[in-house]
Amino acid sequence: MDLTAALLHYGERAALPQWQHFNQALALELAAGRPEAEIRRLCLRIGQRMADTLPVPRCDDTRQLQQAFNAHWEALGWGVAVLQEEADALRIVHACSPMARQFGPDKGDWAAGLLEGVYARWLESQGLPANLSVRALPAQEDGGWIELRLSRKHQP
Amino acid sequence: MDLTAALLHYGERAALPQWQHFNQALALELAAGRPEAEIRRLCLRIGQRMADTLPVPRCDDTRQLQQAFNAHWEALGWGVAVLQEEADALRIVHACSPMARQFGPDKGDWAAGLLEGVYARWLESQGLPANLSVRALPAQEDGGWIELRLSRKHQP
Amino acid sequence: MDLTAALLHYGERAALPQWQHFNQALALELAAGRPEAEIRRLCLRIGQRMADTLPVPRCDDTRQLQQAFNAHWEALGWGVAVLQEEADALRIVHACSPMARQFGPDKGDWAAGLLEGVYARWLESQGLPANLSVRALPAQEDGGWIELRLSRKHQP
Amino acid sequence: MDLTAALLHYGERAALPQWQHFNQALALELAAGRPEAEIRRLCLRIGQRMADTLPVPRCDDTRQLQQAFNAHWEALGWGVAVLQEEADALRIVHACSPMARQFGPDKGDWAAGLLEGVYARWLESQGLPANLSVRALPAQEDGGWIELRLSRKHQP
Repeated sequence: MDLTAALLHYGERAALPQWQHFNQALALELAAGRPEAEIRRLCLRIGQRMADTLPVPRCDDTRQLQQAFNAHWEALGWGVAVLQEEADALRIVHACSPMARQFGPDKGDWAAGLLEGVYARWLESQGLPANLSVRALPAQEDGGWIELRLSRKHQP
Repeated sequence: MDLTAALLHYGERAALPQWQHFNQALALELAAGRPEAEIRRLCLRIGQRMADTLPVPRCDDTRQLQQAFNAHWEALGWGVAVLQEEADALRIVHACSPMARQFGPDKGDWAAGLLEGVYARWLESQGLPANLSVRALPAQEDGGWIELRLSRKHQP
Repeated sequence: MDLTAALLHYGERAALPQWQHFNQALALELAAGRPEAEIRRLCLRIGQRMADTLPVPRCDDTRQLQQAFNAHWEALGWGVAVLQEEADALRIVHACSPMARQFGPDKGDWAAGLLEGVYARWLESQGLPANLSVRALPAQEDGGWIELRLSRKHQP
Repeated sequence: MDLTAALLHYGERAALPQWQHFNQALALELAAGRPEAEIRRLCLRIGQRMADTLPVPRCDDTRQLQQAFNAHWEALGWGVAVLQEEADALRIVHACSPMARQFGPDKGDWAAGLLEGVYARWLESQGLPANLSVRALPAQEDGGWIELRLSRKHQP
């Protein structure tokens, strides 16, 4: 291996590429001419596919689930989740998500859609009963965190 | 500002988020059911929009252009460009691009489309004559670099 | 500029080098044969020199000071400070410092010494009265944060 | 685990701290009042200790050694090594080292000392014959790379 070949290999792998400009351009391009509901479905499916590449081991309780989720989020620098059991739901607060900042200030709902896809797939992989589903609450203005709830599906 | 508010702010801004899992999921989702030519056009337009957010100052010669391009690429960790004037074209060799690795091993043409969009927009902003255009050559198997050429448009 | 020269330049600047192994080796080497008090003074002086390269603009109140400190810490990924005015002191809580983890689990006092040096120099640059000084409290076991106090110097 | 505790944990681990200001302050502090030869020995010993925390598996030939060395350097973002066998020596060219830039423009010899320590320890761990030793050549002005040679010890 000569120096140039070694440098080509090194330069591609050692740099930690930043995607903010790409993500903003992607967001603008997707938003041009697509209805918001279609983009949200796209984000949801991307989140499901992300979860497929980030497997979560079988967990015995909520504490273990939170640890397993956060092991992935911490490694990616994608924020941190806090899980709380409530009377008839599991509440997930996801803080410090980088998505709203990367996609643009008014893209909180995209981030909510993406996280909904990730958590839904992760909880399915734990054997989620069929009558439960994950829903993200509408993103708050201040963007501090995104809240999701795992609860019984709404009846039609 | 209390500690929790300070931590929410810090945790979102100080982490350097990694997008490899997102980019792979995006690539899979886009590839599902879209013809390759449509994806390439999407990459080209994303590249054009990226260039709009990364302005290049007016340059007097090829050496200055190369420096201005590389100031952006180095800051992003997106590789390095070498420009060479030839008899009837400007040759751009772009090495160490992170895209092929992020989007997947067979996605070299997406990276080529994206870079074609970036360089075309950058060169237009320098006052490119209307009869010149930028074309990326087909991506090579080994992925070491992507080659583009600025030359007279092909006559029909 | 040819490709190899461009790659040499790029590879050195685009990588974000990690210093954990260096810092651990440095900590072991410094600890070998030096008394703890000497190392702490070394950390204090390194902190003072760091502050000299991270200038803080003139601030009008505690809130502005906190913002100015955190602009530096956030850019460096070195944690976050929360300032609180108390009856006879200014309390600084510095959380998420990377130092204890980099230098080793029992090196909390080194981190405290370094931060003492940084904050003392920063507060001096704001025109700290001569009878005030900054002291770090002994680092806590759990390493969650480091607490410092700016208050009247102890009389002998 | 509540939100604040989760954020404290996340903020410390997800940020990728930058050490440039620390390293420059360290270099200035060490340089103040210590002879250059003492600093170089300190760098050499730090390099030896770094190598101890970065083990290299047993290699059969120069190509495997280069791969093993570069697996560590690439993971750390500390540059890239090219090994060449010569008539009576092994030549190591180490490019893109971040040290000269971090410690200061005139600190090339510190970087050379540190790398000398790392490579010497790595080669010893492969069963280096006792009459061979690693020497860094004086650092070049342009700082493009550092060259080291493994060869028979000079006779007194």
